[in-house]
Amino acid sequence: MNETMMAIVKPAAAPGAKLERVPVPTIGARDILIRVRATTICGTDLHIYKWDPWAQSRIHPPMVFGHECCGDVVAIGDEVESVKVGDYVSAESHIVCGHCYPCRSGQPHICRNVQIIGVDRPGCFAQYVAIPAVNAWHNDPALPPAIASAQEPFGNAVHTAFATTLTAKRVLVTGCGPLGLFAIAIAAAAGAQRIFATDIHPHRLAMARRMGATDLFDAREDVVAAVLKATGGEGADVLLEMSGHPEAIDQGFASLRPGGFASLLGLPDHPLPSFDLTNLVVFKGLTIYGVFGRKLFETWYQTRGLLESGKVDISPIISHHMPLEEYERAFELMVSGEADKVALYPNGMP
Amino acid sequence: MNETMMAIVKPAAAPGAKLERVPVPTIGARDILIRVRATTICGTDLHIYKWDPWAQSRIHPPMVFGHECCGDVVAIGDEVESVKVGDYVSAESHIVCGHCYPCRSGQPHICRNVQIIGVDRPGCFAQYVAIPAVNAWHNDPALPPAIASAQEPFGNAVHTAFATTLTAKRVLVTGCGPLGLFAIAIAAAAGAQRIFATDIHPHRLAMARRMGATDLFDAREDVVAAVLKATGGEGADVLLEMSGHPEAIDQGFASLRPGGFASLLGLPDHPLPSFDLTNLVVFKGLTIYGVFGRKLFETWYQTRGLLESGKVDISPIISHHMPLEEYERAFELMVSGEADKVALYPNGMP
Amino acid sequence: MNETMMAIVKPAAAPGAKLERVPVPTIGARDILIRVRATTICGTDLHIYKWDPWAQSRIHPPMVFGHECCGDVVAIGDEVESVKVGDYVSAESHIVCGHCYPCRSGQPHICRNVQIIGVDRPGCFAQYVAIPAVNAWHNDPALPPAIASAQEPFGNAVHTAFATTLTAKRVLVTGCGPLGLFAIAIAAAAGAQRIFATDIHPHRLAMARRMGATDLFDAREDVVAAVLKATGGEGADVLLEMSGHPEAIDQGFASLRPGGFASLLGLPDHPLPSFDLTNLVVFKGLTIYGVFGRKLFETWYQTRGLLESGKVDISPIISHHMPLEEYERAFELMVSGEADKVALYPNGMP
Amino acid sequence: MNETMMAIVKPAAAPGAKLERVPVPTIGARDILIRVRATTICGTDLHIYKWDPWAQSRIHPPMVFGHECCGDVVAIGDEVESVKVGDYVSAESHIVCGHCYPCRSGQPHICRNVQIIGVDRPGCFAQYVAIPAVNAWHNDPALPPAIASAQEPFGNAVHTAFATTLTAKRVLVTGCGPLGLFAIAIAAAAGAQRIFATDIHPHRLAMARRMGATDLFDAREDVVAAVLKATGGEGADVLLEMSGHPEAIDQGFASLRPGGFASLLGLPDHPLPSFDLTNLVVFKGLTIYGVFGRKLFETWYQTRGLLESGKVDISPIISHHMPLEEYERAFELMVSGEADKVALYPNGMP
Repeated sequence: MNETMMAIVKPAAAPGAKLERVPVPTIGARDILIRVRATTICGTDLHIYKWDPWAQSRIHPPMVFGHECCGDVVAIGDEVESVKVGDYVSAESHIVCGHCYPCRSGQPHICRNVQIIGVDRPGCFAQYVAIPAVNAWHNDPALPPAIASAQEPFGNAVHTAFATTLTAKRVLVTGCGPLGLFAIAIAAAAGAQRIFATDIHPHRLAMARRMGATDLFDAREDVVAAVLKATGGEGADVLLEMSGHPEAIDQGFASLRPGGFASLLGLPDHPLPSFDLTNLVVFKGLTIYGVFGRKLFETWYQTRGLLESGKVDISPIISHHMPLEEYERAFELMVSGEADKVALYPNGMP
Repeated sequence: MNETMMAIVKPAAAPGAKLERVPVPTIGARDILIRVRATTICGTDLHIYKWDPWAQSRIHPPMVFGHECCGDVVAIGDEVESVKVGDYVSAESHIVCGHCYPCRSGQPHICRNVQIIGVDRPGCFAQYVAIPAVNAWHNDPALPPAIASAQEPFGNAVHTAFATTLTAKRVLVTGCGPLGLFAIAIAAAAGAQRIFATDIHPHRLAMARRMGATDLFDAREDVVAAVLKATGGEGADVLLEMSGHPEAIDQGFASLRPGGFASLLGLPDHPLPSFDLTNLVVFKGLTIYGVFGRKLFETWYQTRGLLESGKVDISPIISHHMPLEEYERAFELMVSGEADKVALYPNGMP
Repeated sequence: MNETMMAIVKPAAAPGAKLERVPVPTIGARDILIRVRATTICGTDLHIYKWDPWAQSRIHPPMVFGHECCGDVVAIGDEVESVKVGDYVSAESHIVCGHCYPCRSGQPHICRNVQIIGVDRPGCFAQYVAIPAVNAWHNDPALPPAIASAQEPFGNAVHTAFATTLTAKRVLVTGCGPLGLFAIAIAAAAGAQRIFATDIHPHRLAMARRMGATDLFDAREDVVAAVLKATGGEGADVLLEMSGHPEAIDQGFASLRPGGFASLLGLPDHPLPSFDLTNLVVFKGLTIYGVFGRKLFETWYQTRGLLESGKVDISPIISHHMPLEEYERAFELMVSGEADKVALYPNGMP
Repeated sequence: MNETMMAIVKPAAAPGAKLERVPVPTIGARDILIRVRATTICGTDLHIYKWDPWAQSRIHPPMVFGHECCGDVVAIGDEVESVKVGDYVSAESHIVCGHCYPCRSGQPHICRNVQIIGVDRPGCFAQYVAIPAVNAWHNDPALPPAIASAQEPFGNAVHTAFATTLTAKRVLVTGCGPLGLFAIAIAAAAGAQRIFATDIHPHRLAMARRMGATDLFDAREDVVAAVLKATGGEGADVLLEMSGHPEAIDQGFASLRPGGFASLLGLPDHPLPSFDLTNLVVFKGLTIYGVFGRKLFETWYQTRGLLESGKVDISPIISHHMPLEEYERAFELMVSGEADKVALYPNGMP
């Protein structure tokens, strides 16, 4: 293999990124080296690119970033048994310690010592990336690389959606970014009776319709009244909160029926300035679940069940495909909202 | 039976209450008439007594209030089959419609048309009270009247505590009023490994110890640090929030371990002014359950299982016993915090 | 209304049935009278028709039988509030007592004193049937009568299928009679990854394919090997046992993966002659759920969610439609296996 | 450390065992070497000792057997980080592969490639034993060695008992061998309302009483009638089946109330000769859970919560303590039923 590679690097503690030639990562005894076929851009990468306060507090430049990818295994460590050279794998981006209480009690997805690829260690916006063998997920050879890469964020939506049963339910999805669109597609595949979707961008609402939403609402209008009307006054059974916007969170809770279920993936930037716990949660007898990462690896099996069987097709959500070199245009497309999700190809277009 | 009776009446839209002679209630075909042995005072009754904004918006004087009671059945309606004259029963205070979605889908405790005894219709601070036969719960004849009456609020704590499993868990109870003390006693009976209790009143913390709390914390100090220290840095497994205080809610969530469970019974008076949903709920992967009323009638069976078997003894929490006539002193004892819970006897002391 | 009506009667303790003119049922204060639009034939009705040992022990002739129906409400009792004349309703056939432990603890579907329409009291193979108002389910006016009637057995399949989550799972359905076909359609609507179906009748397997089964197996061949092969050696995630055949039950359990889930609706006629609890259940760490009736009324809401949204179309399974008068041909079609399910129309074809 | 050690060996494919001097095990990079403080004898060890058909099919002599132990870590492999020399640990006896579907989907306790210490590889009836570091469980230094060793089988009972909630429930435990006695103690700690215990040995029933059973039944009498009588005709809420006897299994299922829960740990030697699935499972709407091993490591945390907090004291069940050299007497005491559970000390009595 080549001893150097091209990679997108956050070179210093400032906005922006650079395409640079850097050494190919070395691997430890339990690691594998992946030649990246496709990598997809996440909102987190935009935070790093724009160098917002969160990025400033967490990222230590210079560092290759990016954490969603798939590719071919080109080298394995001495003790690796579960992966072999030539395997076509995707990366679970959360590396867990295996020793803490959550790890030892069936909840490794909330490991207390989690390290994230492309955040806490070198990432995959590169021709090669090294990951622990246990973080590899074997793909069907027929799965297109962009989809294989996007299984990671799709898995967040699967985790969110599968926190309860959606079949025959009336489901409200607040926020139609890529994760919200994934959630809508999952709810449709799961046989939801109705799928209400909210956003403020007409393009995103149009995509929501395409992925299976039955009712579209402009989030600036009276969503609660609309959901109540559409459900005969009862309210939605399930809220999948994908936006992190305080108004959407309030609308979502207020639209739920008594006894409903809220699954929360969106991350408000700041504490909620006013949250009516009494009327929105306690009196309604709600159940709420906070979603972090993917269940390891139940979520991946569910992801496989949805994608490889053709129950869900997320290809429309990956709106743009380009070589790694065009990363700046890719980031700008994401920042502007023009792109839903962009796939970059570090080793040639597929 | 007598055609009039003594009862505590909210006579007009103003603070206070009066002991008056009023007609004995009449009963419909599916109702029963109970000669009240004991009635216990709830925080809700204090709201009505003090005539706070909630009471002003909900209560229509003149009306007999009070909703926790037990007694002997002295008359039954023509269609009643499940209760007979002479039965010793307690009252489930929530009268549900049976027709709405929650009622028809196994969640009648969050009925959309619930009517509450002593709030929406005449209550039980009286010698007699009429309730639907389906709201009667049959007691063991040996159960003391004050305890039989207090099963209703105890049931709220049972519902809160049994929302998850407590055996071998580290449980944090925030707020040691009567409901918090009940929750502590339940957690102790359920074999909780540790029971952390917070409050600001030394008397209440002393009662918490007596009911089974293993660690007592003054809520004005650093509860989060104390809980983390006591759990080897892991945090509590379960939060039972019984106070409704914003600070206690924050402390409670912050003290929970990743993957923990929060059961919320306390009712903040106002929307929370700042709630860090991202860090307290989503990143931690919590599950939260809002508690309203009692599950009908699973909670009552659980209550029986705890009380009649002797696993839980709530008699210390019923700190004062007096005739109905002394209601003013009873309310003042509750308002001052001097009493945990007061039992009134409308037909003679037991 | 007419004071007499035509009905199918089991006239005496012997095989067969007769179409007779009998009085229209009278109704009590909480009952409703339904003019039957459609009634569908169940396997239980065949037992009664053929007068097998179960029927001999349970049925008291002379009696109108039949328990699946829908129709228009033509009269209501004095105390009925939830149903009005003119409503288009289906009948929940299980009349529960409301007083026993299961009824009072959220499990009325296993009421200890259940009475079944057409088994323990007069049924709906008739122009009119009387039922308690609480047993009425309101239909969308657009729902075809045969489907509205068949919601009752469809609900059994919904209860069976919704005992666990099917989305993205590999589901094995053993037995492709009407209930098995319903289960397959539900699994398909719920987004099951694979649906394996077993039966011995080519016609039924062809219908299974039509309802959404992905893999068909002749139950006389090595089903276990076929399921293991189709799942990469892992086994099915979920078993929906709809046949009651001992061989199918063994095949089903043996085809499940460790940690799998079995939902059992089929009723073996006799105790299983050999059941390898150690290897089929304990060592595999299975979870098993026995299904009786429908959850009241969660299952009906789920049924509505599937049928009224168009997620499931069960019309192909109702293979024959005929006037009530042709009941003998209808029974023979069912007995011979020629018909999947037959709808009878007592008041004229739709 | 010594290069040889004393160990109990199954020397050849025949009944019996021998105390021999053998090499101290060597350890790999991820293993640890434990100097055994205490080891306890399990029923499985008796199968190996007696050389029954199961043992003949599974065990490959010559081999050291025994799988329940605790001790001090005296050496660690090069890559071990979670355990250090001097730690006081117990051994989880099931070594899981980490790669199979159950291992990757949160159910490693039913790993398809499990290897059991003392069954598939050298065991702990010895002065030293080597295990993977991930199989070590850290003990409180104050935990007595016999109890620290017996946490492994105690964990089986915890897994069985914690499959559902026991607080305030009426629990039936069938079989009062060590595992049944453990289950009774757990149910008592969990606040079960009533604990029914069945066995045929008066000594075991006396121990059951001591561990917290409230009602004792001779399994040869009419257990079903007795349980129904004791529960007002309702039946037990939960069955913990610890015996593996077909009659006890039938009695247990027949004693459960509709909607009850059965947790099955006992292993029938042969397929059940007659099992009334229709009436015992389907019509009753039961939920059944098969128990294998311990949840890794939730069960161990629960075990710690019960034992280290003093909620459960299992020391009475470890009826005999003796040096490793007296293994023959120990086995005979177990075979005869005279001993509940025996602890052996390979490196000196504590």
